[in-house]
Amino acid sequence: MSSAEQGTSDRRLLRGARSRRAILRHAVDVASLEGLDGLSLGRLAGDLKISKSGVQTLFGTKENLQVATAECARGVFADAVVRPALSAPEGAARLRALVESWLAYATTPLFPGGCFWAANQAAFDGRPGRVHDALFDGQRSWRGLLADELRHAVEAAEIAELDVDLAAFQLDAVLLAANTALRCGDEDAAAKARRVAEGLLEPPR
Amino acid sequence: MSSAEQGTSDRRLLRGARSRRAILRHAVDVASLEGLDGLSLGRLAGDLKISKSGVQTLFGTKENLQVATAECARGVFADAVVRPALSAPEGAARLRALVESWLAYATTPLFPGGCFWAANQAAFDGRPGRVHDALFDGQRSWRGLLADELRHAVEAAEIAELDVDLAAFQLDAVLLAANTALRCGDEDAAAKARRVAEGLLEPPR
Repeated sequence: MSSAEQGTSDRRLLRGARSRRAILRHAVDVASLEGLDGLSLGRLAGDLKISKSGVQTLFGTKENLQVATAECARGVFADAVVRPALSAPEGAARLRALVESWLAYATTPLFPGGCFWAANQAAFDGRPGRVHDALFDGQRSWRGLLADELRHAVEAAEIAELDVDLAAFQLDAVLLAANTALRCGDEDAAAKARRVAEGLLEPPR
Repeated sequence: MSSAEQGTSDRRLLRGARSRRAILRHAVDVASLEGLDGLSLGRLAGDLKISKSGVQTLFGTKENLQVATAECARGVFADAVVRPALSAPEGAARLRALVESWLAYATTPLFPGGCFWAANQAAFDGRPGRVHDALFDGQRSWRGLLADELRHAVEAAEIAELDVDLAAFQLDAVLLAANTALRCGDEDAAAKARRVAEGLLEPPR
């Protein structure tokens, strides 16, 4: 391949990657409103006024598109919710930063239909497969992050000894419930979630 | 109206009520799998091999059908999950019975798509209206029941003083998360939910 041909091919790849990202970002919005089942290659092509064959070339199947959409949502969430909290020192401070960042996400969601996972997990929890795995890997890694920070806090004796996996399960559950409650207009839900978090973060006696 | 006419009319009403119940019970199953948005008068008529005009006469609009379906799900849940626990004495014992009854429901759901509320709340949490209200009234009354039993337990000094509304919020959140986790094959989730419940039910010191 000549260097000119290489250049053309690189530009094509780059253009392909850019379209892929733009399509996926829209797919995430659609799936937050109507669920991953509401996605189709034709629907996206229509919404974005591009050819269906172009979308087909990029994703192949509906299942590939759904998996890529779930992964894209995870990336958007990581950038907007997780990354800012990582500047706080690890342990209790970072856990508080993650809780605040999450409550801000629940109050002013990144996605028009609200929390992407809340909108999609129930539909896929009983349907094993790649879409299920992509959806629940995201939650597992979020819960793992909460557990890691709880562990750091225990090791640094910032908080009392506790079962970090149980506490992470509990905190994740309460944050998800707060999301639903906030979307139903229950303004107290954020305060409730904070109080549960502070209960878990009690200093050792 | 003659008494013969009255008899015919009563029989018609009764037949109407029976069909209504049969249609709704099927509608609950469909909505647990595909969401309340997946319901339509035509779809139900086709599934049950009855005339669409008959279904139309009974429900009128899709919204009426969705509201009636949510209310039917609530009735099925009350009969199968709540009522058996009410034979336990009020307070801590009844709360434990409710938790066990709920975990049995999460493990072997009444509905083919799993928890009816988990499957539908995310789609309606941001959409005010009668369907939203029917869905969330069910959750509010369930959470209210948990709070009542916690209050009885505190008043009888079976458990330590706590904020009953916060504890009910927390318990409801953990039970819902356990449902999702169990459906994903996380067998520990029931044990986690029980440990959170026992944490809330600690006796006074």
